[in-house]
Amino acid sequence: MIGLTNYAGVMESLMNSAEEKQPSSPLTNSWAKKQESSKSQKPNGVGGFVLVHAGAGYHSESKAKEYKHVCKRACQRAVDQLKAGALAVEAVAAALVELEDSPFTNAGMGSNLNLSGEIECDASIMDGKSLHFGAVGALSGIRNPVMVANRLLSEAQKGKLSAGRIPPCFLVGRGAHDWAVSHGIPPCPSDKMATKFSLSAYKRNKRKMELAEKMDTGHNQTKKRRQSSENGNGSGCLDTVGAVVVDLEGNVAAAVSSGGLAMKHPGRVGQAAHYGCGCWAENACNMNSYSTAVSTSGSPILASEDRVLGGVIVLRCCRCVEAQPSQNFQGILVEFLWSHTTESMCVGYMSAQDSKAKVRFELANQLN
Amino acid sequence: MIGLTNYAGVMESLMNSAEEKQPSSPLTNSWAKKQESSKSQKPNGVGGFVLVHAGAGYHSESKAKEYKHVCKRACQRAVDQLKAGALAVEAVAAALVELEDSPFTNAGMGSNLNLSGEIECDASIMDGKSLHFGAVGALSGIRNPVMVANRLLSEAQKGKLSAGRIPPCFLVGRGAHDWAVSHGIPPCPSDKMATKFSLSAYKRNKRKMELAEKMDTGHNQTKKRRQSSENGNGSGCLDTVGAVVVDLEGNVAAAVSSGGLAMKHPGRVGQAAHYGCGCWAENACNMNSYSTAVSTSGSPILASEDRVLGGVIVLRCCRCVEAQPSQNFQGILVEFLWSHTTESMCVGYMSAQDSKAKVRFELANQLN
Repeated sequence: MIGLTNYAGVMESLMNSAEEKQPSSPLTNSWAKKQESSKSQKPNGVGGFVLVHAGAGYHSESKAKEYKHVCKRACQRAVDQLKAGALAVEAVAAALVELEDSPFTNAGMGSNLNLSGEIECDASIMDGKSLHFGAVGALSGIRNPVMVANRLLSEAQKGKLSAGRIPPCFLVGRGAHDWAVSHGIPPCPSDKMATKFSLSAYKRNKRKMELAEKMDTGHNQTKKRRQSSENGNGSGCLDTVGAVVVDLEGNVAAAVSSGGLAMKHPGRVGQAAHYGCGCWAENACNMNSYSTAVSTSGSPILASEDRVLGGVIVLRCCRCVEAQPSQNFQGILVEFLWSHTTESMCVGYMSAQDSKAKVRFELANQLN
Repeated sequence: MIGLTNYAGVMESLMNSAEEKQPSSPLTNSWAKKQESSKSQKPNGVGGFVLVHAGAGYHSESKAKEYKHVCKRACQRAVDQLKAGALAVEAVAAALVELEDSPFTNAGMGSNLNLSGEIECDASIMDGKSLHFGAVGALSGIRNPVMVANRLLSEAQKGKLSAGRIPPCFLVGRGAHDWAVSHGIPPCPSDKMATKFSLSAYKRNKRKMELAEKMDTGHNQTKKRRQSSENGNGSGCLDTVGAVVVDLEGNVAAAVSSGGLAMKHPGRVGQAAHYGCGCWAENACNMNSYSTAVSTSGSPILASEDRVLGGVIVLRCCRCVEAQPSQNFQGILVEFLWSHTTESMCVGYMSAQDSKAKVRFELANQLN
């Protein structure tokens, strides 16, 4: 164990890209820094830090309380893990489980329903220490998709399977479900994962689709597509959840989980399951003195869109032995930011020294 | 249409990284150039160029003839398309269909069987002009997975679906199959896609697995895994196929298709379907005067492996108006290379001016 007792300070970025109107590079913000004085409260205490988000999307303000609560709980779960000595990857998975379990987020329980009225989830997790990655796509009937992604990651770290077979790091559909169950993760009937809210949203979207298709009858396909694209996105369709963590040893990890787009085609896999898209975590190395963990939301790979809708949480940290040599400080300097181009985003963050998490629920119209 | 009549020259790289023994960066070769004198044969003819590979893996020398033949046919198919005025993305898909149809490649027909004795394919395609991407993963019962990936790409280019829904670019499993069939791509019974060779390999691998697991009974899990990792990879398990193309207008495209690892878990999706992993294509822009197309094979994301096994084909090109002003040359300079760390790789390449493709079948032991 490398000695980390506390933080030199949490560098907090409150830049909100919803304020920015240039669609050219909505997610490339510089690090705006505002120092918080969260100096050592426990000189010999344990360290670690977590940043979570409950979705960058179009949340109604009336649900702000629920989103704040789930962010708080998710931070607490991760910090509990960190205090118990868990590595970043375990803590980040614990935060995600909490976010998935909320019926208000579009991940795990209460996810968007697809075109067939079923829930199919995407999730991925990355360990910055080993650079191992685990992911599931279009997974049905499992309450916590991130647990399957995490189990894939940990199984892969054990090495090859019998007869030299390479273990999977990305499983989809029925195969992912069966693998999870055979590894002790209990199945959950799909109808128990749907909520009143997701079912009513499905019915509403279905009617909207039928109406749109009815209105377009007789028009040509191109015209139809152009018209419908002006309708904008379905409500609450982009609110993937995610978390980034640094642990006591300075390892970073990131995870992401999503129910995907509302009314998506069955079998559609979104960026939450894509290697290098949904999340990234990489410990500091000789080439780079910063450890970095990122979790994204939205659709940055839709390059042809006029405006990319999405959000991101980022954490980076470095050892700061030289920074305060007079105090013989062995800490880790943590910087973090969140940024989004969607109407709203709810984030929470907490260090292992904090007694409770801080949360922010931002609506773009409050900022303009 | 931008005037391209012929090539200034095909810059050919014959560097073979199987000759290189440093496992640290086996795929990062510089461009070794050897100029071929394929000067203008048809001053007003059409242009374009294709580079294909039939797999970087462990092919027996006895099958060299078959691999060479399929590479030739794939090049011809792409060139036929280019001569008919097709864009790069259509030509690269045509080459892939030919590679998939061969029972000797691990893509489409004759793919590796998974643990359940079924064929599940991955494929992706990218258009350098629009940067659109289409992919399928763990797809069963479709003879040409690349056709589904290409159709996803072309459908996405039409814009949004009814009620503002974002069209899918990556579909997996049953959902991908159903989408393909509903878009006019005929289903193919899985048993018709298996070949004598793939079935006998499955039986052999099954016996090998059972034997390995039997031998390991009584040993602990860690020991078991370490032992089995020394058995190496299953035979012929890494031979993804791919192609890269530049068309008459200077657009580039890339595609990749794979049956995946032999005896993989059902639902496993490999890098051939991953955005940014299996293939990449990007036309020249203000920031970069080169157009680039890449198709990979193998497992570069297995970062913990002692040696990364894989192969890559790369094509880059730029307009060379200034290069030969005396000839008023409006051509495109094309450079290409292939490189692999596996025992063997078979490649073919052809320009639209050539009467037939050139092919190379390389075995590492012939080079050392």
